[in-house]
Amino acid sequence: MNELVSSLHDTIVSLNTSDKSLSALIRSEELEFVMEAHDGLSAAIAARAGFKALWASGLSISSSLGYRDANEASWTQIVDVVERMADASGLPILVDGDSGFGNFNNARLLATKLQQRGASGVCLEDKGFPKMNSFIGNRHPLADIDEFSGRLRAVKDTVPEMVLVARIEALIAGYGLEEALVRAHAYADAGADAILIHSRKSDAAEILEFTKQWGGKLPVVIVPTKYYKTPVSVYREARISTVIWANHNMRAAIAAMRATCGRILAEESIASVEPDVATLEEVFGLLRYDELATAEDRYLPKHAGT
Amino acid sequence: MNELVSSLHDTIVSLNTSDKSLSALIRSEELEFVMEAHDGLSAAIAARAGFKALWASGLSISSSLGYRDANEASWTQIVDVVERMADASGLPILVDGDSGFGNFNNARLLATKLQQRGASGVCLEDKGFPKMNSFIGNRHPLADIDEFSGRLRAVKDTVPEMVLVARIEALIAGYGLEEALVRAHAYADAGADAILIHSRKSDAAEILEFTKQWGGKLPVVIVPTKYYKTPVSVYREARISTVIWANHNMRAAIAAMRATCGRILAEESIASVEPDVATLEEVFGLLRYDELATAEDRYLPKHAGT
Amino acid sequence: MNELVSSLHDTIVSLNTSDKSLSALIRSEELEFVMEAHDGLSAAIAARAGFKALWASGLSISSSLGYRDANEASWTQIVDVVERMADASGLPILVDGDSGFGNFNNARLLATKLQQRGASGVCLEDKGFPKMNSFIGNRHPLADIDEFSGRLRAVKDTVPEMVLVARIEALIAGYGLEEALVRAHAYADAGADAILIHSRKSDAAEILEFTKQWGGKLPVVIVPTKYYKTPVSVYREARISTVIWANHNMRAAIAAMRATCGRILAEESIASVEPDVATLEEVFGLLRYDELATAEDRYLPKHAGT
Amino acid sequence: MNELVSSLHDTIVSLNTSDKSLSALIRSEELEFVMEAHDGLSAAIAARAGFKALWASGLSISSSLGYRDANEASWTQIVDVVERMADASGLPILVDGDSGFGNFNNARLLATKLQQRGASGVCLEDKGFPKMNSFIGNRHPLADIDEFSGRLRAVKDTVPEMVLVARIEALIAGYGLEEALVRAHAYADAGADAILIHSRKSDAAEILEFTKQWGGKLPVVIVPTKYYKTPVSVYREARISTVIWANHNMRAAIAAMRATCGRILAEESIASVEPDVATLEEVFGLLRYDELATAEDRYLPKHAGT
Repeated sequence: MNELVSSLHDTIVSLNTSDKSLSALIRSEELEFVMEAHDGLSAAIAARAGFKALWASGLSISSSLGYRDANEASWTQIVDVVERMADASGLPILVDGDSGFGNFNNARLLATKLQQRGASGVCLEDKGFPKMNSFIGNRHPLADIDEFSGRLRAVKDTVPEMVLVARIEALIAGYGLEEALVRAHAYADAGADAILIHSRKSDAAEILEFTKQWGGKLPVVIVPTKYYKTPVSVYREARISTVIWANHNMRAAIAAMRATCGRILAEESIASVEPDVATLEEVFGLLRYDELATAEDRYLPKHAGT
Repeated sequence: MNELVSSLHDTIVSLNTSDKSLSALIRSEELEFVMEAHDGLSAAIAARAGFKALWASGLSISSSLGYRDANEASWTQIVDVVERMADASGLPILVDGDSGFGNFNNARLLATKLQQRGASGVCLEDKGFPKMNSFIGNRHPLADIDEFSGRLRAVKDTVPEMVLVARIEALIAGYGLEEALVRAHAYADAGADAILIHSRKSDAAEILEFTKQWGGKLPVVIVPTKYYKTPVSVYREARISTVIWANHNMRAAIAAMRATCGRILAEESIASVEPDVATLEEVFGLLRYDELATAEDRYLPKHAGT
Repeated sequence: MNELVSSLHDTIVSLNTSDKSLSALIRSEELEFVMEAHDGLSAAIAARAGFKALWASGLSISSSLGYRDANEASWTQIVDVVERMADASGLPILVDGDSGFGNFNNARLLATKLQQRGASGVCLEDKGFPKMNSFIGNRHPLADIDEFSGRLRAVKDTVPEMVLVARIEALIAGYGLEEALVRAHAYADAGADAILIHSRKSDAAEILEFTKQWGGKLPVVIVPTKYYKTPVSVYREARISTVIWANHNMRAAIAAMRATCGRILAEESIASVEPDVATLEEVFGLLRYDELATAEDRYLPKHAGT
Repeated sequence: MNELVSSLHDTIVSLNTSDKSLSALIRSEELEFVMEAHDGLSAAIAARAGFKALWASGLSISSSLGYRDANEASWTQIVDVVERMADASGLPILVDGDSGFGNFNNARLLATKLQQRGASGVCLEDKGFPKMNSFIGNRHPLADIDEFSGRLRAVKDTVPEMVLVARIEALIAGYGLEEALVRAHAYADAGADAILIHSRKSDAAEILEFTKQWGGKLPVVIVPTKYYKTPVSVYREARISTVIWANHNMRAAIAAMRATCGRILAEESIASVEPDVATLEEVFGLLRYDELATAEDRYLPKHAGT
């Protein structure tokens, strides 16, 4: 192949190699950070900013689609969004697979298709289908440990190259530390590559206690959306593997669009918002219009119309 | 039907009635404003802000999907996005249909499906397929007038209730005012409900001259992305019908996500961005989680697990 | 609109009127017959043959997609197939909605989208998600009556115009006649428009006994796939409303394709199968290429290429 | 990975290796046969019958979707169908890419996505977009040689592992043998891996004359839909590489469904068609329900409900 390597080809190459990267990142000695994205554009922005990997958030993707985070979006709609994120960013993507969209069979089908579209890992939580967002309501029922372990084993057997993260909802659902640890051990035995321990407390105490008692059998991934004030030095000290910034691109976009809509409506003008919004040139840069221009020079005859 | 009217039902109702609204809006004596949106979330935000109608921008939707505005997104992918916008906003939507994705047959199929998914109007531009974004490159070839008129007639005959906007690229492509007027008259004869006259000059002079010579045979729609400094009082005076703010939600979102990614990456923390991003409660409000909670009370037995 | 009424427009019209037809058909005094279809082509064939309504079979659609009838296909993939069936046939369609793809919220979302794409009714069965095909395995667990009734009520409240058929799996799952009747009454109270009583016995005895004891509170729909030998005069006498021929287009297609593949492979020739397969002209007729030719004459200038 | 290798995993493996197979097949010294399929089911049937590779026919897929073969189906709808064919069959698939759905950029995007979903090759024809079926109408305009060569080069540079077949429409469009040969040489220079020479004559004379004058610079692929009476010994002698049986699964299915619908409607019974249609057991066998049953034993706890 010649020197003109299109972004399309890059994508396919990254598809074949990115799973190594996510796996390495999760297992690395360093504390790593994974940024939420929810469509091709936010994925491209996070990549351009310098993040090494993306979190395809179920809440953010659902919201972007105008759905509620209650498995209203179908599993194939999620897969389609992840494809666009992979193509637009070239980054390894860990996908929020919710509960796996059904039983072990749905979970392995989901994971297989996510891998095919360019994702490097999938995170499954020990809940049933359909789910409710973890931040809403109380004491959601947890999945049976054996049944959920079956989901994990099915995914691992089917797509062994995918990083498989088991998300434990025991703390957030109010079942306590003991239950969380029992589950973590069971999920490790079932083939999980990492444990995501979730909390909605406003401090990290229960997360840190879990990590301490867990003892590093598998890497620990956290999502400090609610306990955001804890400095990351605490996580480094606790030898936590990976921090997911879980929905901040989406929430930043909402705030900006709400403010922009409000101003434009009130002012009947875009003049005052113009300095605050991205230029069209930035849009063209993010999505590599330069590659298209180069390719047109190469592949489109000068005399051809359109 | 009882008093619990779900958002789903609202959507269907609005689907059946919204085309009247867009038609009325385009024909009204007032200067009206239509706001760009590109997914369910941005559509919900624009609706909440108070806009009366949405512009489903080809550039913005393509960008959101991580595609370039060169007909990389398939026509069914566009239709799928518009469905999410309609469902999440309940607003009338004018869809940027580019050149119609092929010939008259593709154009009428597109329009039919857009209507089915809840759009109220479609805008077709007199270019070929695939298109390039109007702001890139020079002297793009225009479609043959007769052939493009055939596209318009086919759409009008097939879905007469859809508002059909004919977008004239003659000015932007450098063919001059005379050509623009000839085309406007031809497209009016072919059944267009409004004329969108596009310009990429930094002032509104050619737009105003066109509008003056056009004489109000059909409503005029404009897109002042480049000539944003002109105050809207000028358009009111010129009896322009509708102003489209064409890509400012998308550009606001980009700027915010870029800044947020940068800060989080640099600070290894979300603490300082927290006050600047939307709260989760705002997300839940925009997407009507309250309706879901009410419906759960009504339809889900108390003893049933999630 | 002029005399050239395109098939596209017909479709939209039928979308708005067809639900009346399915409703009338289910409630009519006559015994009615509904034919399975699983894609646009089979739907067009059944319409051309003279059937008045279609059954969008979950088994057949899954099989056509190469999926197993275990909710491997996502709910949006099913919706997409139903759209193609509606557009290609113009007939009222009763969709096999399985268990509703989750809880009441998934069920009403499914029904809303099916209606939007042109379906006239949906059949929900009192099972959980994911389902297994009723003909495989034994004593599948049934849904809680209250929870399933909530699914029915949610659908009826959200899309009251859709014909809602409640499918009772009590007999097929081995829970007996008493259980079936209790459920039928509960589902009628919840808003079902008809009861589909399913059986996999090789005779109609339990179906007839159910119908007798049921007493006509709502129309009864049956699926005599296993008890196919019973003559329909028996159903007329029993005042059964509707018979669904549930998968015979798909099974006819399989047998024909298997035989054709075998012969072509063995003979290294298509000469001997030529008289047995449909002509290209038949394909063009089924899919109304004549309409496209007429439309080209009308909308495509003579001098235009392509 | 343990001994239970699921069909899902098989699919992914075959995805990574199948392109070698199609390439080898096209280049082999033997005359090879490729069978049309148009959905997951027909692909599974052709695989079960023993064919080594599949032709994803544009006409058949369009027809199956209820669309006309005039690029009514979007390129992503085609890609989605090909994915189901690949997953259900495990066979290498050569995809009928029509004209590439636009210019070089659309063509390379199409090819990239087809490869990602499991296809091994793509065939592009030297026509414009939208296309009309080659068997309808006369003297369709051909693409400019340089412009079409650009499409081929772009695809080859982007996905070099995909088998790229250049389909020449010069004969079928009435431009003669000389034009066909000029084009074949240009397309070979542009990177095509094989030449598909198409004809709608009822004998193979012009195909054979082309092949003779072409001289074997690249393998020749033919589609003897119209000249089906010619025995394949003639093609072996002419050293033609590959014969595509282009639409016979679809046409066999139509004939069978038409006959079955007619009988069921007339007889108000399925009793007499029962012996002629596939059994449910055959359906379950084709789609590997046995794998699902084995997997349930392995992954689903005995005490878990469905």
